[in-house]
Amino acid sequence: MTGPAASTLLSELAAALSEDRVSADPELLSQKAHDRSYHSWEPPLAVVQPLSTQEVSEVMRICQAYGIPVVPRGSGTGLEGGANTSSGSICLDLSGMKQIIHIAADDLYATAEAGVMKSELNAALAQYGLQFPAGPGVDASVGGMAATSASGTTAVRYGTLKENVVALTVVLADGSVIRTGSTTKKSSSGYDLTHLFVGSEGTLGVITEVTLALHPVPEASVSGVWSLPSLESAVALVVAALRSSLRLTRVELLDRLTVDALRRYTGYSAPVTETLMVEFSGSGAEVQAQYAQFAELAEQYRAAEHLTAADPEESRQLWQARHDVLPATLALVPGATAMATDVCVPISKLPECIAETKADLDSVDLLAPIVGHVGDGNFHLAMLLPPGDEQALARAKEINARLVDRALAMGGTCTGEHGVGIGKIGPMSTEHATALGAMRAVKSALDPAGLLNPGKVLG
Amino acid sequence: MTGPAASTLLSELAAALSEDRVSADPELLSQKAHDRSYHSWEPPLAVVQPLSTQEVSEVMRICQAYGIPVVPRGSGTGLEGGANTSSGSICLDLSGMKQIIHIAADDLYATAEAGVMKSELNAALAQYGLQFPAGPGVDASVGGMAATSASGTTAVRYGTLKENVVALTVVLADGSVIRTGSTTKKSSSGYDLTHLFVGSEGTLGVITEVTLALHPVPEASVSGVWSLPSLESAVALVVAALRSSLRLTRVELLDRLTVDALRRYTGYSAPVTETLMVEFSGSGAEVQAQYAQFAELAEQYRAAEHLTAADPEESRQLWQARHDVLPATLALVPGATAMATDVCVPISKLPECIAETKADLDSVDLLAPIVGHVGDGNFHLAMLLPPGDEQALARAKEINARLVDRALAMGGTCTGEHGVGIGKIGPMSTEHATALGAMRAVKSALDPAGLLNPGKVLG
Repeated sequence: MTGPAASTLLSELAAALSEDRVSADPELLSQKAHDRSYHSWEPPLAVVQPLSTQEVSEVMRICQAYGIPVVPRGSGTGLEGGANTSSGSICLDLSGMKQIIHIAADDLYATAEAGVMKSELNAALAQYGLQFPAGPGVDASVGGMAATSASGTTAVRYGTLKENVVALTVVLADGSVIRTGSTTKKSSSGYDLTHLFVGSEGTLGVITEVTLALHPVPEASVSGVWSLPSLESAVALVVAALRSSLRLTRVELLDRLTVDALRRYTGYSAPVTETLMVEFSGSGAEVQAQYAQFAELAEQYRAAEHLTAADPEESRQLWQARHDVLPATLALVPGATAMATDVCVPISKLPECIAETKADLDSVDLLAPIVGHVGDGNFHLAMLLPPGDEQALARAKEINARLVDRALAMGGTCTGEHGVGIGKIGPMSTEHATALGAMRAVKSALDPAGLLNPGKVLG
Repeated sequence: MTGPAASTLLSELAAALSEDRVSADPELLSQKAHDRSYHSWEPPLAVVQPLSTQEVSEVMRICQAYGIPVVPRGSGTGLEGGANTSSGSICLDLSGMKQIIHIAADDLYATAEAGVMKSELNAALAQYGLQFPAGPGVDASVGGMAATSASGTTAVRYGTLKENVVALTVVLADGSVIRTGSTTKKSSSGYDLTHLFVGSEGTLGVITEVTLALHPVPEASVSGVWSLPSLESAVALVVAALRSSLRLTRVELLDRLTVDALRRYTGYSAPVTETLMVEFSGSGAEVQAQYAQFAELAEQYRAAEHLTAADPEESRQLWQARHDVLPATLALVPGATAMATDVCVPISKLPECIAETKADLDSVDLLAPIVGHVGDGNFHLAMLLPPGDEQALARAKEINARLVDRALAMGGTCTGEHGVGIGKIGPMSTEHATALGAMRAVKSALDPAGLLNPGKVLG
């Protein structure tokens, strides 16, 4: 798009919204052009900041008329470049859409605009004794979480965004506004468009409002840190727990390297070995019973309890270690950044997948602590990249590519929760060998001009 | 299609499968031309009975070449005419696809061919201490349950088929075979085609294999029958339970008429009033604690315990009453059939929705006991139609239409679990006013010639 045409486009967008919410300020362009990943980006033509679904609709209508690509953006916490812009595109920044539209406490759902952060929603829910526990540890926008099909440590109990988004407001490529799903607990009425948009990363439509399932805040919880003699025994213990009447709220695996990093970074004192952090929640009597049952099971797998926490403050401190993993890992190499992998495999394949990956890592000079949402078969390597070390980046990309191949060969997926973005387009044709054509057909049907987040998900 | 062309088509199908699995026997045509509903049907050209995904693919390829509509069929237990055929179509009877392909006990999933019945799957799972609890009370095929997005009494705990189908093998309109989803617990990889096909009732593709999430068989359970002074108090008690740390495995509402019908039909002795049947399951200690907590809550809503059952045989007897509801209801009017309604509303709207519906029923001469999956906001009227009474049928259709309007006005859905089929096409344009265009675009993209189960879901 040449200068004068771009200038007309921006004027038209400014007229539809307001001058101060259509910006070509270079600093803002750079700031909003990328997520937290290592993937490349170019500054967009402009950052557009709508405040309502109607304004998003106007933006889409105008961009459709000009044939300008639109890259929707939430809070920018993505890890695969899903919100990264190319030159000539518009960054559609939804972070200003902050309204919590409705909390239906008795019906256990809430509707919020795309830019509402998970923390903001939970703050509003507290007075009802309710929570939205799904999603990543990092604070993120509800629109971004839905678009990525995000999850995190609580998926083993509460599911991912897939299981927790019940309805959506979506602006389609041509600017039309649709409402998908229902605020009822279930429905068999028509095609499930809600789940088509969840995880579509802005390539099929722009999610502007999200209706989410809510859950009661548990009365009580008990957490524990357990040291295991091996990776195999850790996974076997978790499988046994999942096949029993136990209901884990969280179960996180920390490998030796991660434990070592935590010990260096904080006052963490657990032995340097494979470690499980577990949590049970519910009524007071019940969580004690559940934890005792888990302890009995753990003994069979030669697990040793290192720490336990039953009161909220102790529990917060215990779980702080899990939140400290990233900074502790980064502190191992001064100035380093981390490239995160995200494969997910059937749980029974976890020990083999992790062991082979560790062997692969040993063959190259890369430090990569591993943490895993072990109840879901999903784990992350944090591959440490010393500043400016292009060779380390290249090695990390190779490790990641081999890890993805390994996971796919085991019946796994290239991404458990980070999404495809730019970073996982390569494996899509292997993972979805037969289904890719149907995905392309759906994309063409909903975005015939290919203006919604081009180059993402399907490439 | 004229006689000779039809005969060529049938010969080609017989050559692709085998003579004895392509039939135009009038008795078989009538038998396979409809489900259990009151909706109209015409005998198809032929009943085709493939035994593998590959054979389904062949059938689709041939029917596409001839431009012949295909109506997929599972076990025929549908209630909205989703599997009803029109003249000139082919009935694709998948009930012979009976292989349980894989049980991954440690990974908590199983893959079965479409014709495998829920009871058959559960029989095979028993040796692993696992179960597939989702789906309707009536035995049904896994393919049919997935295609309908079915559920039943256990949805409050385990979710519907939506939450329990993790991957599918689907034959598309042109005969190509695709695999959707992943056998991992979660994935953010590509568009969620799995959920697009779940609930699409054979209009987007033919589901030939279903991968389902499995759950441990609980160690213990406690059930109870509770009498409530009013509908309002029954719903309020359930809402309070859902907002607490209780985890209901089942919670069913029986209205006075239903209780009365059961008393006449069996030795059922509960008082004739609004009644809740509840179940808690898990470890032994835990279910006792949960039931005690529920009993405490129930007192606040003036509920009186009528019956409780903790051992499996007592529990089976207690829940037999719920299974007896349909025969007991039918026995109220000699020779009658029942038309089932299926709206679902946000739970807080249940008392109002049911009360208004009862008032509407009182205005016409129709007997219609009500049972409800009250934890989901879903309830069924069983409107009794005396044999040959066309006027009663007409009145029942009017009641149903007004009920659907009422539910939609309350933010509900026209079908909680029975599907759209033929019977709910009318309300689709109201319920999905804005989204219907996107649904049609998806349909056109995947079935451009409109040969997959035409006239269903979108009309």
